[in-house]
This record gives sequence, C-alpha cells and structure tokens, in this order.
Amino acid sequence: MMEVMDILRKYSEIADERIRESISDITPDTLLRASEHLITAGGKKIRPSLALLSSEAVGGDPGDAAGVAAAIELIHTFSLIHDDIMDDDEIRRGEPAVHVLWGEPMAILAGDVLFSKAFEAVIRNGDSEMVKEALAVVVDSCVKVCEGQALDMGFEERLDVTEEEYMEMIYKKTAALIAAATKAGAIMGGGSPQEIAALEDYGRCIGLAFQIHDDYLDVVSDEESLGKPVGSDIAEGKMTLMVVKALERASEKDRERLISILGSGDEKLVAEAIEIFERYGATEYAHAVALDHVRMAKERLEVLEESDAREALAMIADFVLEREH
Amino acid sequence: MMEVMDILRKYSEIADERIRESISDITPDTLLRASEHLITAGGKKIRPSLALLSSEAVGGDPGDAAGVAAAIELIHTFSLIHDDIMDDDEIRRGEPAVHVLWGEPMAILAGDVLFSKAFEAVIRNGDSEMVKEALAVVVDSCVKVCEGQALDMGFEERLDVTEEEYMEMIYKKTAALIAAATKAGAIMGGGSPQEIAALEDYGRCIGLAFQIHDDYLDVVSDEESLGKPVGSDIAEGKMTLMVVKALERASEKDRERLISILGSGDEKLVAEAIEIFERYGATEYAHAVALDHVRMAKERLEVLEESDAREALAMIADFVLEREH
Repeated sequence: MMEVMDILRKYSEIADERIRESISDITPDTLLRASEHLITAGGKKIRPSLALLSSEAVGGDPGDAAGVAAAIELIHTFSLIHDDIMDDDEIRRGEPAVHVLWGEPMAILAGDVLFSKAFEAVIRNGDSEMVKEALAVVVDSCVKVCEGQALDMGFEERLDVTEEEYMEMIYKKTAALIAAATKAGAIMGGGSPQEIAALEDYGRCIGLAFQIHDDYLDVVSDEESLGKPVGSDIAEGKMTLMVVKALERASEKDRERLISILGSGDEKLVAEAIEIFERYGATEYAHAVALDHVRMAKERLEVLEESDAREALAMIADFVLEREH
Repeated sequence: MMEVMDILRKYSEIADERIRESISDITPDTLLRASEHLITAGGKKIRPSLALLSSEAVGGDPGDAAGVAAAIELIHTFSLIHDDIMDDDEIRRGEPAVHVLWGEPMAILAGDVLFSKAFEAVIRNGDSEMVKEALAVVVDSCVKVCEGQALDMGFEERLDVTEEEYMEMIYKKTAALIAAATKAGAIMGGGSPQEIAALEDYGRCIGLAFQIHDDYLDVVSDEESLGKPVGSDIAEGKMTLMVVKALERASEKDRERLISILGSGDEKLVAEAIEIFERYGATEYAHAVALDHVRMAKERLEVLEESDAREALAMIADFVLEREH
C-alpha cells in the first residue's frame, strides 16, 4: 500500500504542475483563492495518476496525457465544490468547504471556472485528432457526472430502486469520470482500439468498486478512520447497494423498520439499520460486488503488454478496496 | 428593426435544431426539464445568429458554425441559470427562474450539464484543427464569463471603480462570449486571420455596447418596456458606467448622496440618483460610449467583402442600441 501511495505521489506531480499552470492566471484574486482551495487541500489524486499510467501502459509517455490528467482532476474538484453546495456539506478534505469560506455565489463560480479550465487543459497541446477524441470522452463523462448526481437526488425519494438502477447511478456519478481518465489517457498515449477499450473497462470497474467500497466503509469502519460518524449515509437517507439489497430481501417488518430509520437523521438508530443489513447479508453482498469488480478490472489489464505501468494499475485496483477512508 | 428580427429568427433556427439534438438525450427527466426550461422560454438568440452570420460573412456556410452557435447559446443559458441563483433573481425570460421551479441543487446541475453539452456541440463535427481552434476560443470566453461575474460581485463593495476597470468587467462578463461567437464562427467558416480578428473586434465592440445600453435603459426607459421598475440597478447597487462617471465627476455633496442611495433598495430614492447622473452628464456619456462602440464595430466589418451576411451584421450592430428592453 505504501508503494501505491508512492506511485500516486510520483505521477500526480506531473498533473499537479499542469493544474497549477492552468489555474494560476485566474482573476480576480477572490475567485483564484476560492478555485484553488480544494486543489491545495490535497486528496489522493488517484484520477490523474490513472490517466498518466494509462498512457504509459499503452506505450506512450505519461506526459502525453498530462493535459487529460489535469482536466480530470479539475472536473473532479469542480464537481466536489458544486456537490458540497447541493448537499450542504461543510467539510471537505479536512478543510471547510468552498461555499463555507467564500459563500455560495463565489463557490458556484469557482466550480464553473475550474470546469472551463479543465477543457483548456485538454486542448492546450497534442495532436488535434487525438485531442478531439480525448475531449469527446472527457465531455461525455461530464454529462454523466451531472446525470448521476441528478439520479442520486431522485433516489432519495424512492424506496424501489433496483440494483441495476443503483449501478447506473454510481456508474454515472463516480465511475464515468474514472473511466474517462483511463480511456482518454490511453487515447493520448496512442493506444490501439482494444487497449483503449480495455482501459475504459478497467476504469469503469474500479470506479464502481470505489463507490461501493465507500458506501461499505460507512457501515463497517470506525469514526476515527472515517472522519465522520459511522452510518452517516444511513442517517442522511443516502441510497447504497446495502440499502437496495436489504429492502429487496428483508421481511415486511424489518423493511418497514429500515424505511423509518433511513434519512431520519437519528444517529442512535443507525446501529439497528446496520443490524438489518447484516441479517440479510446486504453488507457482505456489497463487499462481494466490489471485490468482483476489482477482479474484472485486473482481468481487463491482461490485454496490455506487461510493464511497470500495467503492474501499477493492477496494484491501484487492489488499493481501491484497501482504503479505510 | 423588423428585418433584424427576421434575420435572427431565420439564423437561430439552424442553431435551435442543433441545441435540441444536443440536449434531448439528457436523463433523468427532471434534469432534462430543468435544463431545457430557459431554452424553450425563448430569448432573441442574437449570439448564435452572430456565429452563423460570421461564418457566412467570411465565405463559409452558416451551417459550418452550427455547433459553435449552439455551444454559445448553451453557455449563455448555463450562465443565466447560475447567475439567477447567485443574484437570487426569480424571473427570467418572462418565466420563473430554474432554481425557483426545481430548487437550487437541480438548477446548479442543469447549468453544469448545459455547460458540458456546449463543448459536446463544438466537437461533434468539422475539421479537427478548426474545431480545436474554435474550442480554444469558446473555452477562453467561459473562463472570462466567470471572471467577469466575480469582478462584478467585487465591485458592489467598492466606490472607486475606474472606467477602465468597469470596461474590463463588462468585457469579460458580457462581451467576451459575443466576441467568441463571432470569432469562432469566422474560424469555422474558414476566415483569414485578418477576417477572424475583425469579427472578434466587431463582437467585442457590440458586446460592450450591448451591456452599456442595457444599463442605460434601466434609467431612461419605462417600467412597461423594462418589465421591472425603472432604476432597479440603482436600488440594487449594481455598478454601471453611469455610476462610475457620476462618482468621478460629482461634487462632494452629490457624491455622498449618490453613495447613500446606491444599493439602499429604496426605489423612491432612485429618481434622485438619476437626477445626479443627468447633472453630471453621466447618462449622456454612457450613451455616447455605446454609440461609439457600435460605430467601431461597423468599421471593423469593412475588412470583409461585401455580402448579405456583412450587411446583416451591420444591421445587428445598430439593433443593439435600438432595443428597448
């Protein structure tokens, strides 16, 4: 795991430099500070590293995908800023959210300007045909991120969400941008259609595993690792694979009880909801689905020739489920 | 003027079709409806028509710039949706604003998805080299739109804004997107560097005239034409060229009085502020600056060969100051 962190650190530096170049000329100063707040606050930078490694894994130079890598991280940051406004979340990456520090109007603008800068980063250099192709991938993922967030918002009012609908939602909300990182990275590295498709699948699979594991940690981890109370998703009424499965499998009585707890905001009832998840194997089921997606992700890497970059991508796939927060 | 309306109607249909194609596949349904609300609500569609006419004016087909035209209108709509949230404006194009009907979170997302769709529209077809060049122009204008809005927000707390700073703000907030329409339209039409530069200047000049005239109408028009009370910009404390000039030229006493009225929200005091504008020739000055920019815009068209499209662009420049709302 230490090794994965080292890889992420090394690769993300290439993207960080491009991001810094890209946003440093934003004016006025207030907008610049609001825009760079979450970027300087850190994060694991998995997404940009995946873009760079995907370029390298198809025989390109990591630097060929530097613009794409920067763009993906900028889009991720833009979506975090807007999501925090929508969900009224006040803490992000251990810092107050952008809208808490600068107010909602400036936070909306900071997101918008980072979104613009993302496209600027993609088109800044490289072969025009490749850039156009990579850009189409990135833009498509942006549409999906918005659609996924809208689906997620709609799910909070529904109790009949199917596993398929849930998987579509997290694909759009989380996995599509990760798949765009690996796919567009492979395009910029000059990958073959087969390599590009394999890396897109790899990205989608680890993206899905990532989100399911995130939801899973909310019930199996502890407050210290999470940095927030255990089961806060349950208290907030967030739709997760465990909720979908438990609602599908539970007895009438347990189902009614679970429904009354979801979104109640009452953290004392959370333990009872987690018990219901366990009773019907929902927690275990979610973990198995995440594991399965990591396995599929690694399988798809076999299309590529052996290389350090391919090895690193396989390690990152495992790392997705080793995270404790 | 009737003729200009006919031209705008004819040309904007080409862009409308592309916009409809572009957004029709947005899901879920709530996000689609929130996204298309302002688009179906109408608007004069000056921006997309300018892109199409610019392509034609350099010898291209208007359709060559259809993607750019659709993108510019989508970006304009996205910025209106987000601006209405930021300024808490409840009416737009005679309809309730998007955030009024669907709530802020969905309105933020609707803006974001239209923004994504704008880039999709640009890259969908055309020669890769031209698309990349046009896209750089469009992206650059998006950054400026955000920066202009941030500058405008900052100006509300300042009383020492210079004319130069004011012009920079409205260039970024309003004129940059119009200049992007004409410049990117000319690029897609295969214009020469001289033609592209002339059309960019034309767009910037009419954009500046457009914004100054908008502010001017707020004090010289009537409530019926405006659809809102006369002088509402004054009551809201909005920075305009008239405010800049009056604060620069007024006696200590009139200056103090004007400052106490600006942003007071008191519509009864508005008439007094307008008197102060008149006393120091600030209203007349603003109108003269707008006229001058229309003149410069038309002058720049002389670089182009004579054509119906060039004629239409000249008419649109005059139309900018004939608007009464």
